[in-house]
Amino acid sequence: MARIPAHPDTFELQQVLEALVDPVRRSIVTQLDAGGQDIACGGFDIPVSKSTATHHFNVLREAGLIRQYYVGTSRMNTLRRAELDAAFPGLIDALISGPAGR
Amino acid sequence: MARIPAHPDTFELQQVLEALVDPVRRSIVTQLDAGGQDIACGGFDIPVSKSTATHHFNVLREAGLIRQYYVGTSRMNTLRRAELDAAFPGLIDALISGPAGR
Repeated sequence: MARIPAHPDTFELQQVLEALVDPVRRSIVTQLDAGGQDIACGGFDIPVSKSTATHHFNVLREAGLIRQYYVGTSRMNTLRRAELDAAFPGLIDALISGPAGR
Repeated sequence: MARIPAHPDTFELQQVLEALVDPVRRSIVTQLDAGGQDIACGGFDIPVSKSTATHHFNVLREAGLIRQYYVGTSRMNTLRRAELDAAFPGLIDALISGPAGR
């Protein structure tokens, strides 16, 4: 159980924006949404080292943007899309769809 | 003419997010939208010094969030709402309306 990281139950706009202002973290969110399925930490197309990627996943998890769980030794990532849409209607759509996905 | 600052014609999501991640700048945008009218730089309810406020207005203007012009010696601020909504549908709404305005 200790291997499963803690996840927040509530969202703070400030923390969510601080997570999403980073382009690598925004790319992780975009890839999760586009794929429509959970992705292992090693399965993202991001131009950073493994340790830097781990930091980015931690920031996203602590802000409530993703949920993480283990399958064997792989840490999987789920976009908390429905919860985010309920807390901040339109925000994720605005950031990852259409021209805003630039 | 030299007193009228330059305004960008295009928007970059990264720059817009960097402007909006600051809570004081988000408050300026929220106050402009809520008031429905232009507001002089001295007319905002923000907890910062005049020089710090000037910095925040500059960041917002350079990101394309506000348009500035002079009336006498007062620098007025306009939210570029329609242009922003066209560039990033839903983004401003998500940040300033409802629970997201926290």
